[in-house]
Amino acid sequence: MKDYFRILKKDNRSNARIGRINSIRGVIETPVFMPVGTKASVKAVLKEQLDEMGCMIILSNLYHIYLSPGIEIIKKAGGIHKFSSWNKNILTDSGGFQVFSLSDIRKVKDEGVEFKSIIDGSKHFFTPEKVIKMQLEIGSDIMMVLDECSTFDADDKTIIDASRRTLKWARQSMEAYETFKSNDASRIFGIVQGGFNKNLRKYCAESISEMNFDGIALGGLSVGESRMATEEMIAHTSQFIDRKKPLYIMGLGDPVGILNAISSGVDMFDCVLPTRISRNGSAFTKSGKINIKNKKYSDDFAPIENDCTCYTCRNYSKAYIKHLHKNKEIVASILLSVHNINFLFDLIKNIKGAILENNFMKFKKNFIDEYRS
Amino acid sequence: MKDYFRILKKDNRSNARIGRINSIRGVIETPVFMPVGTKASVKAVLKEQLDEMGCMIILSNLYHIYLSPGIEIIKKAGGIHKFSSWNKNILTDSGGFQVFSLSDIRKVKDEGVEFKSIIDGSKHFFTPEKVIKMQLEIGSDIMMVLDECSTFDADDKTIIDASRRTLKWARQSMEAYETFKSNDASRIFGIVQGGFNKNLRKYCAESISEMNFDGIALGGLSVGESRMATEEMIAHTSQFIDRKKPLYIMGLGDPVGILNAISSGVDMFDCVLPTRISRNGSAFTKSGKINIKNKKYSDDFAPIENDCTCYTCRNYSKAYIKHLHKNKEIVASILLSVHNINFLFDLIKNIKGAILENNFMKFKKNFIDEYRS
Repeated sequence: MKDYFRILKKDNRSNARIGRINSIRGVIETPVFMPVGTKASVKAVLKEQLDEMGCMIILSNLYHIYLSPGIEIIKKAGGIHKFSSWNKNILTDSGGFQVFSLSDIRKVKDEGVEFKSIIDGSKHFFTPEKVIKMQLEIGSDIMMVLDECSTFDADDKTIIDASRRTLKWARQSMEAYETFKSNDASRIFGIVQGGFNKNLRKYCAESISEMNFDGIALGGLSVGESRMATEEMIAHTSQFIDRKKPLYIMGLGDPVGILNAISSGVDMFDCVLPTRISRNGSAFTKSGKINIKNKKYSDDFAPIENDCTCYTCRNYSKAYIKHLHKNKEIVASILLSVHNINFLFDLIKNIKGAILENNFMKFKKNFIDEYRS
Repeated sequence: MKDYFRILKKDNRSNARIGRINSIRGVIETPVFMPVGTKASVKAVLKEQLDEMGCMIILSNLYHIYLSPGIEIIKKAGGIHKFSSWNKNILTDSGGFQVFSLSDIRKVKDEGVEFKSIIDGSKHFFTPEKVIKMQLEIGSDIMMVLDECSTFDADDKTIIDASRRTLKWARQSMEAYETFKSNDASRIFGIVQGGFNKNLRKYCAESISEMNFDGIALGGLSVGESRMATEEMIAHTSQFIDRKKPLYIMGLGDPVGILNAISSGVDMFDCVLPTRISRNGSAFTKSGKINIKNKKYSDDFAPIENDCTCYTCRNYSKAYIKHLHKNKEIVASILLSVHNINFLFDLIKNIKGAILENNFMKFKKNFIDEYRS
């Protein structure tokens, strides 16, 4: 456990840091952006394309995998890596967030949560123990505990109840993990909830830090609140977290958000943003997001970014991608997804370089200035 | 011109043959299947994937490209190869077939055909000369002449009128080609029409053969008639065609159809089939088409075909592809399209081997027996 995460370099003017997670499926250098493959497939992107970008970890979602194809199929395949042919790391979200955001009918009890399938309306019940057991069974490399996520405008009573349950479930999850795990292949991360109540966030952060988790995640943020509220809560909560462990903010992945979270000491990110905006024709560039639908790209034969080294920019022009997107060609989604994921990978590579050179805060300011120009 | 097409080996028991088209963009060995990239993109497949399969030529469609992005954009890009980043051969269909099959409102005159755009309803007019000029402008490697395609149940009067016009247009196309071409980069193929009237097909085949085309295509087949009618007309018409030129059957690409057409001396094929059936979950196998939606594949962890060497079969199981297809993941279309195109490429490779060994007719019988078993 001591060697699972190592901090290699700390920034001298912020909490930004470079680290290394020693997973048996290959070292994950942090900070890291994890592309989202909700259903065990990163949308429109093949594993060789992720490999070329240096991707060492993707995120998958227990909620979706549980509903389709089902845990039994994945077990029969020999685990999620064999099933999907992705042999690097997979972090699986517990499905807590999906239970609360996707299921219109759900009942939360202290024992767990009952929900209706978004596929066929059938009833299901998740307990903290069951969620850990299933993640162990499919061979997840980093498992998340079941948590209760509140909406950003929830009242104090709701948040307190959810936080209490989340902490109770975290303890049960840890016990289940200790009971069922047969080796160190699958690691377990706790989740800090607490809504937008600072005292509660502090309490949850300290409580989760005291447990024996391999990493700690911030949950219930980036759920519709203002960017300032998100950043304030990240900065606040991260102070009370055991900084020896990797810190993961769930569901955040816009370039500026990543930079700010890294300043607060966050190490891991995931977000559907780079693949989702691709399907809508959007692309990240250093001077902000562009949309390929814009008429001016019709005869713009330059790549999305001239100095970008991704597959898409090495091979294709904005005019061609615009043409494909306009004509609903699948290849447009492939090309934009590859560029957008690579953009975040490049951003993180540059952030690491800046941290190494004790230049992070300046890099951050320059990047944000250009991105918002 | 003499060296453009060379026949390397003839089968001793059928009209099957192996040949070579010497294009400046790379030699095309025949028989050849040309994947369809209607809008200058093979649906869901990247150029590197086509390269890996040994693809030397794809088909694109002037009708679609003319409407979107428009000829001016392609010219500005420096031609269709630069625009699409595909640097091997591109055959462009003239759009004759699309004018007749996609446009509900069209007026055919001896001068050309007026049609309404399927995109915005705007009116357009194609003449034989304009169609050749546009294909020269975008840098097509093999251009098709404008033709008039009849439905398979058209009456004799209609077919005779259409055939007369198609021949007239072929002559005008050839003249336009001789006038406008500046080098030998773009070659021109004539199209034989004649509906399902054998005398007319003979007349058209002989007339087109007498003109100075680089290759000859059979049009107006595989348009809804029975398989037997298609094959009978291919066998009949091919007798009257100048066999020194490459023979291309337009829009036919099912495995059995390919085998039968090759027996009649056909060298070139194109069809949307391998990519279209992919989006519907279907895959070619040597024992016939399968559909990945079938429940029995849920826990079938073998590839689509055990001895297939395509990217998809080397990496993924039926169970995983079924899961992706069921969940509408774009990657399912990519994987199935790659397999299905590769299947036709493999079929043609094996056909070539059989022709070389004077074993084609036996190979054909065995393949069809297994495919239909």
